[in-house]
Amino acid sequence: MAKEKEFVKEITPQGEDFSKWYIEVITKAQLMDYSPVRGCIVFRPDGFELWEACQRELDQRFKATGHRNAYFPLFIPESFFEKEKEHIEGFNPELPWVTQVGDDKLEERLAVRPTSETIIGHMYSQWIQSYRDLPLLLNQWANVVRWEKRTLPFIRTSEFLWQEGHTAHATAQEAQEETLRMLDVYTEFMEEVLSVPVIRGQKTPSEKFPGAVATYSIEAMMRDGKAIQAGTSHNLGQNFASSFKIEFLDKDNERKLAYTTSWGMSTRILGALIMVHGDDRGLQLPPRIAPTQMMVIPIGPAKMREHVVPAAHELVATLRQVGYRVGIDDREDVSPGWKFNEYEMRGIPLRIELGPRDLAADQVVVVRRDTGEKILVPVQELVERVRELLDVIQRSLFDRARAFREEHSSPVETMEALQERVREARGFALAGWCGDEACEAAVKEQTGATSRNIPFDPPVHQKTCVHCQKPATHTVWFGRAY
Amino acid sequence: MAKEKEFVKEITPQGEDFSKWYIEVITKAQLMDYSPVRGCIVFRPDGFELWEACQRELDQRFKATGHRNAYFPLFIPESFFEKEKEHIEGFNPELPWVTQVGDDKLEERLAVRPTSETIIGHMYSQWIQSYRDLPLLLNQWANVVRWEKRTLPFIRTSEFLWQEGHTAHATAQEAQEETLRMLDVYTEFMEEVLSVPVIRGQKTPSEKFPGAVATYSIEAMMRDGKAIQAGTSHNLGQNFASSFKIEFLDKDNERKLAYTTSWGMSTRILGALIMVHGDDRGLQLPPRIAPTQMMVIPIGPAKMREHVVPAAHELVATLRQVGYRVGIDDREDVSPGWKFNEYEMRGIPLRIELGPRDLAADQVVVVRRDTGEKILVPVQELVERVRELLDVIQRSLFDRARAFREEHSSPVETMEALQERVREARGFALAGWCGDEACEAAVKEQTGATSRNIPFDPPVHQKTCVHCQKPATHTVWFGRAY
Ligand SMILES: [Zn+2]
Ligand SMILES: [Zn+2]
Repeated sequence: MAKEKEFVKEITPQGEDFSKWYIEVITKAQLMDYSPVRGCIVFRPDGFELWEACQRELDQRFKATGHRNAYFPLFIPESFFEKEKEHIEGFNPELPWVTQVGDDKLEERLAVRPTSETIIGHMYSQWIQSYRDLPLLLNQWANVVRWEKRTLPFIRTSEFLWQEGHTAHATAQEAQEETLRMLDVYTEFMEEVLSVPVIRGQKTPSEKFPGAVATYSIEAMMRDGKAIQAGTSHNLGQNFASSFKIEFLDKDNERKLAYTTSWGMSTRILGALIMVHGDDRGLQLPPRIAPTQMMVIPIGPAKMREHVVPAAHELVATLRQVGYRVGIDDREDVSPGWKFNEYEMRGIPLRIELGPRDLAADQVVVVRRDTGEKILVPVQELVERVRELLDVIQRSLFDRARAFREEHSSPVETMEALQERVREARGFALAGWCGDEACEAAVKEQTGATSRNIPFDPPVHQKTCVHCQKPATHTVWFGRAY
Repeated sequence: MAKEKEFVKEITPQGEDFSKWYIEVITKAQLMDYSPVRGCIVFRPDGFELWEACQRELDQRFKATGHRNAYFPLFIPESFFEKEKEHIEGFNPELPWVTQVGDDKLEERLAVRPTSETIIGHMYSQWIQSYRDLPLLLNQWANVVRWEKRTLPFIRTSEFLWQEGHTAHATAQEAQEETLRMLDVYTEFMEEVLSVPVIRGQKTPSEKFPGAVATYSIEAMMRDGKAIQAGTSHNLGQNFASSFKIEFLDKDNERKLAYTTSWGMSTRILGALIMVHGDDRGLQLPPRIAPTQMMVIPIGPAKMREHVVPAAHELVATLRQVGYRVGIDDREDVSPGWKFNEYEMRGIPLRIELGPRDLAADQVVVVRRDTGEKILVPVQELVERVRELLDVIQRSLFDRARAFREEHSSPVETMEALQERVREARGFALAGWCGDEACEAAVKEQTGATSRNIPFDPPVHQKTCVHCQKPATHTVWFGRAY
């Protein structure tokens, strides 16, 4: 497209204005565009391809853990919402209501789904009759809508894409195991595929899902020190089963309420991916998720093109044959310098340069996006070296992100230290908490930081509440969050 | 699940009540369930899996023809609809309107998309500036809503799932080529993958898409002689480009309006798949689309299970290793007879029975769902024979469907003959048409048949209009349609 041919303009450095950097990068890389509908974005092909890659990876993990996909209606009758009081209170302000069709007013208003526990609960009550119907393990890929006051592309949009798992079990223990199993699946996906380290833990009661018994989350640190909740898994206990009468005849011939769970991951993980790995030159995509893992760029004087370009295409064919996702930019009217900048900005993990001298020496120059390192590689070793390099980059992006998070995290014992950590030094503070919601609210009020979660494995156990200094019952990660 | 263990009950024969047969089959096979939202269904896992298989097959064909996926907002501002008069008039009665969010009334009403030409047209006008931005070839997988008065699962539901391709081109010729190319893609998918023969042709003006210059369709005949429009491809000319100002600077330095197309295929093809191949025993799935291509069922007396069951699992492993989609039902508390009925009803193309005597003779019994034929196959030849049988079934389902259509189609020259064909004999009538919408309307009024399309290759060319007997300008397929 025409705009791609303009020289990549200076991107605002992250340190100068992180928000501006973010918007510039996702716009220049053509991942998204703003839409005429308030708070809704358009996923352009380069952005949607990232989501498709995430979908593939997650979907195979869901199926491997015994889940099947289904699809439930977009609309939820108003009466369904009212069956779960905590749920309707939590979502009401964000619900778009369909009140008429054509010129006719509807008898009952329909909400556009913000999540599907209610309608799925209703169907489960019909499908589940006996212990033999359990566990019921379904997942739905869908669009959902929550009308947000402040929006940010990918991170918080009024309509977003996600998956929502919904399961029903015969016992409380099985439901809890499922809840944690899916948190494990999310963790493994974030860390192994997206190279994004996450902190696993339980949400405090004030931050849990409306209607849940317990909510667990994985939290990632962006390069401005703020948190993104990348995925949540909820143990719903018997709350929805009770509201929607999900009952079954157990082996002991008694009718019992089922236990349900739900868990979701959305297109906001694209925002996390970008904010965790990006740098002042633009995006950085981990090789396992990158739609294009390497770009081949023929270089050298015009008169050598007839030799270099076909050789470059041969390289592409060889690399594709072993399964790599490879692009080539052999355009004549665009300079190599422009191309180098462009594909660095787009975050492609490796660049492979081939010029006349390389061709003569039967070698190529491989350039790492993450370090800028240039490596001379004999053509016959290319497939093997590329494999190693992609693995190294995948791991090194993870290590870099984890090191950043560790540098920007610290245990704190006072409100002053917490304030200093989350605001001036930007990052996460690990603090004691007495369990009183008033203390949690005071931290938010005074520092802007919210409780991220109560980690499963805190590096230290705090003894006193950071706010009231009474004995701590929990050790909590606090941070400012998107 | 518990209900699966009930013995498969008698299904109403197709000849007795086709509609009843259809509902019974899709319900018993657990493809769908009714939802509490009027006209919206739930896609249960077995139904959704069929759609996922269709998506995979179509998506790879779209990508192979140069298209990329993107995602546009669910909501469309009212003002957008009004930019294309014919379009809003066509869709208005079916549009659900979001008029408020939480307790706040919206300033501008938002329609839930019935299709996305308008919002995509708006984005294209921003993305397309120069001839270098063309062609722009995007596709979207999405849910859409059209509030239908009479609904039928899969075939016509208020919310449905589909893909909608949207392309923009520099010339009228390229747009026309794209329109027909995608009709070809649909045809190939329907005939090769779903084994459903289709009639390709152009819609009459009264049946074209609101806002299109020309609409092309593929039409399939169900086993009750009625038609289903399985896919449509629209040449939108410059209509939407003009309403949404999709302009570009051409090579000759002149600003020009682009030419656009759109094309879509939806979950209604699942209804067509079922109504074309199903028989009195239930579903019949063509091997290429069947989520499970064969079921292995160990048989024989209980005391032999310890030998037979492990051998059956070995067979499954062998067949899966070469890429087949294989299930096994080794439950002890369900009879082989029940299983045979069940998997026939679910339309699985092949059944593989293994009993003690087969085991001793190193053979299995393979049973074809389409013919009921039982074939003794030595285990060492199984992989190869299964490959042949699946190919044979794939083709024979197509041949059976085409033969049925041919038996139920005939050229007609009078209204009486048309009436007889579409009502009593049930099927399609090929008739001459003078081009006057009044004659088309009279046919509909008097026979219930609508013009399906003006086929590219009619078997005969009719000379006179079936209604007014004036000279025919077109030869048209008429049929009663879902
Ligand atoms: Zn406290
Ligand atoms: Zn006529």
